[in-house]
Amino acid sequence: MEKEILIYDTTLRDGTQGEQISFSAEEKLRIAKRLAELGIHYVEGGWPGSNPRDIRFFQLAKNLRLEHTSITAFGSTRRPGTTPKQDTNLEALLEAETQSVTIFGKSWDLHVTAILGISLKENLSMISDSIAYLKSMGKDVFYDAEHFFDGYKANREYCLETIRAALSGGADSIVLCDTNGGSMVGKIKTIVEEVRSLFPDITLGIHAHNDCGLAVANSLAAIEAGATIVHGTINGYGERCGNADLTAIIPNLILKMGRRCIDGSKLTLLTEVSRYVSDIANIPPLNERPFVGRSAFAHKGGVHVSAILKKPLAYEHIEPGVVGNKRRVLVSDLSGKSNIDYKANEMGISLGGNGYGSREIVKEIKRMEDLGYQFDTAEGSLELLIKKTTGQFEEPFSLLFLRVINEKDRNGQTNSQATIKISVGKEEEITAAEGNGPVNAIDNALRKALQKFYPAVSEMRLVDFKVRVLEGSAGTAAKVRVLIESRDGKDIWNTVGVSENIIEASWQALVDSIYFKLNKETMR
Amino acid sequence: MEKEILIYDTTLRDGTQGEQISFSAEEKLRIAKRLAELGIHYVEGGWPGSNPRDIRFFQLAKNLRLEHTSITAFGSTRRPGTTPKQDTNLEALLEAETQSVTIFGKSWDLHVTAILGISLKENLSMISDSIAYLKSMGKDVFYDAEHFFDGYKANREYCLETIRAALSGGADSIVLCDTNGGSMVGKIKTIVEEVRSLFPDITLGIHAHNDCGLAVANSLAAIEAGATIVHGTINGYGERCGNADLTAIIPNLILKMGRRCIDGSKLTLLTEVSRYVSDIANIPPLNERPFVGRSAFAHKGGVHVSAILKKPLAYEHIEPGVVGNKRRVLVSDLSGKSNIDYKANEMGISLGGNGYGSREIVKEIKRMEDLGYQFDTAEGSLELLIKKTTGQFEEPFSLLFLRVINEKDRNGQTNSQATIKISVGKEEEITAAEGNGPVNAIDNALRKALQKFYPAVSEMRLVDFKVRVLEGSAGTAAKVRVLIESRDGKDIWNTVGVSENIIEASWQALVDSIYFKLNKETMR
Repeated sequence: MEKEILIYDTTLRDGTQGEQISFSAEEKLRIAKRLAELGIHYVEGGWPGSNPRDIRFFQLAKNLRLEHTSITAFGSTRRPGTTPKQDTNLEALLEAETQSVTIFGKSWDLHVTAILGISLKENLSMISDSIAYLKSMGKDVFYDAEHFFDGYKANREYCLETIRAALSGGADSIVLCDTNGGSMVGKIKTIVEEVRSLFPDITLGIHAHNDCGLAVANSLAAIEAGATIVHGTINGYGERCGNADLTAIIPNLILKMGRRCIDGSKLTLLTEVSRYVSDIANIPPLNERPFVGRSAFAHKGGVHVSAILKKPLAYEHIEPGVVGNKRRVLVSDLSGKSNIDYKANEMGISLGGNGYGSREIVKEIKRMEDLGYQFDTAEGSLELLIKKTTGQFEEPFSLLFLRVINEKDRNGQTNSQATIKISVGKEEEITAAEGNGPVNAIDNALRKALQKFYPAVSEMRLVDFKVRVLEGSAGTAAKVRVLIESRDGKDIWNTVGVSENIIEASWQALVDSIYFKLNKETMR
Repeated sequence: MEKEILIYDTTLRDGTQGEQISFSAEEKLRIAKRLAELGIHYVEGGWPGSNPRDIRFFQLAKNLRLEHTSITAFGSTRRPGTTPKQDTNLEALLEAETQSVTIFGKSWDLHVTAILGISLKENLSMISDSIAYLKSMGKDVFYDAEHFFDGYKANREYCLETIRAALSGGADSIVLCDTNGGSMVGKIKTIVEEVRSLFPDITLGIHAHNDCGLAVANSLAAIEAGATIVHGTINGYGERCGNADLTAIIPNLILKMGRRCIDGSKLTLLTEVSRYVSDIANIPPLNERPFVGRSAFAHKGGVHVSAILKKPLAYEHIEPGVVGNKRRVLVSDLSGKSNIDYKANEMGISLGGNGYGSREIVKEIKRMEDLGYQFDTAEGSLELLIKKTTGQFEEPFSLLFLRVINEKDRNGQTNSQATIKISVGKEEEITAAEGNGPVNAIDNALRKALQKFYPAVSEMRLVDFKVRVLEGSAGTAAKVRVLIESRDGKDIWNTVGVSENIIEASWQALVDSIYFKLNKETMR
């Protein structure tokens, strides 16, 4: 039986080297708990020698009781010209009080001589005595052979010497790193096979970067060649082009290669974990991300959609639910009748009978998309549009007047006030409200005005607000597209507005959001 | 000598199946011209049988005079129960008047019987007689074997029969498609090798999708196994998880595998083409995209940055300029002194002498980042921050009062007016302006007020405006981050503002943008 593959997550360490990625110690702790729920074997928490936040994380992590997951601390070999015992970096590593530690050392002679400026021999001592010291303190030691593949290509003999030095120090496993991410799949496979045959009994790992777009493939190739530990990050976050993406590696291992790694039943958490980490990183989730992206099982072309309705396997390589994702049918001007039928059915809207069929709806969508609207990410507005064009929607209120004033003086922050007048049936209502910004002020004023007519509006809230400037063609003013996400206790819905004026676009999206809520309530 | 690899771009056809991707006929034409400049061999322009926009594109494309690039039209084999001559889809294909055409047919028996609902034999006829008809009309015919790899795994014999049918019809080349993107690298390689040995003399192509995160690796593996045509899209745009990304495949082929494909000297256009296509698609460019992303050669960790300063090769797999990209050193709370020194030097700012060293600047950056500012994407604001903290910046004007009013009535669109009062030295100025939205109104009013003091403000304009809502921690209001991009005839700069109020955040970013421009002018 083939060996189990151990998943080693470095989102909290190497992942934070990514542009725009930064986690507080508390956020790291929350992510570590999620990774443990997913069944990840090792969670590298940070580099306690490099910054106070990571020291604090390891203090907090001491109270974590995780059943199947080990938190590891990361550091480098001792500095040149000192002893392991005197080295502050190794000291910080020990103070993290984790059972497993990972240290990296240099495998590439260029780095030893040109960057560190030390002798090749001194580097070997740094590797072996640092590891021996950590072993003497009772630690399990992973050794990260930095730039291993570049080193192997440049000076194979010396590169292998550094591995022997790590083993002589007592390293429990050797992780081969493609630090610059420049290696091709075939080369990774051949080199890991060679190392495997030179050191048949040791535990090997792979740490790949995505600079050639090959990090996932390189990780899987190394596993085929005998590596049993795989490093990566959630969503592939990491420096430059990122690290190997565990959200692709894990399902490929389990579903495609039949290898054991995390418990297969946990795989359904994968999409959620991916989005959770992107939320905390405050990076919009990548729609096209394999397996876990919002578009990963989204179908747009009419041909595909009609086939999917007959047999999902026809255009889906796996069942989306297996990784916690779901199928989506998109509606756009590329859509055929099938998409609208599928969508209307999903929304529980009956079509026809009003002189409007799916084709007319597609035409109306096309017209709106030409104006800059986008419905594949605003299904709340799409539902209203379908209902409006088929005569199944009546406006619950009308705007009579709206004014928003923002003022700022020499010392103050800006404050925003909205005055609004609406009518509901024959009744009119005028009111005003303040807010953190004009849209918030409008939102507050509108709900205040609607409250006595529709108390349900108090159950909902605006949770996300995105603005995109649409480049106008030559000669026209740029338009703004506003996407709003709203929630109540049960549902999440998205609405869209487009205008040259951000206030107008926001108003449209806001009104659609409230219409959607009220429509939902009356449908009950 | 190994054969030249022909690059077949399908951004304009398969790329537009991607969520949020849509091009007008004119936009397609502009992209096609850029692809031709890059030296792409084949540009698939669309599916004239499926929509009027693509028909229009081919009409426009007839006037294109491209030296080394062929525009191809895409379609399917004839429909069941008709003849090629009667088939409207094939007719539309011929009306596109391209020398090369591509048609796809079914290789997977499941699709033939369960989706098309026809006999296996009828499918073979559809393939061979459709191709024979196109050949009789003088076309070069690419045959796309849809779902080839799934078909090969499911029913190898029938799958190979479909290839024989295409060859008997006279297909000039056979493109093996991993339509669902579910195949592993090793499997792709083995299957292409088998096909290669069964049909040693035919021209083979590969068309890969990225559902397993392996599209680039699968394409390169197929080429190693003997394929000489590679399909892909710029930025990997395409349905679900996208197509194989040509911006990674092309440099890997040339720089890593030493294969001929496009003229190597054109490689420096790659980054520009990638951004051009993402601009037209109106999709923010992916920072982490291999080779061409803004972060692809960005260095954040202090250790890496100090090494890069000594020897770029230490942490870069290729010289960024080779693909038209450039090295960036990022400044964040993970930065060391090296990053600030590099950055200040790049900006021509002298540090020290004011009691402020790099470490103090890092501290100030850290404080601002805690508040939600972000400087790695707002280097204009960063430059001002460094100058301010080292006493090298004096505010060219002060705000005394600002009011923005937005009004909307029952029928009208929103209109926005700003009133502003500023002081420059001892002089005061009050004025007002309208705009497409509140920020545009403020921008107009501020420049109007500044005009007589600083005529240079008329040279600059705001070209992009991005808003991001930052999720507040529990109990705090959500903040808004505004990023503004500005240009004048010579430069582009980015500035940032953060506040709970979008007007306040926009004001900050706007003022920084104008400060930057005026500071730049006085430095001359």
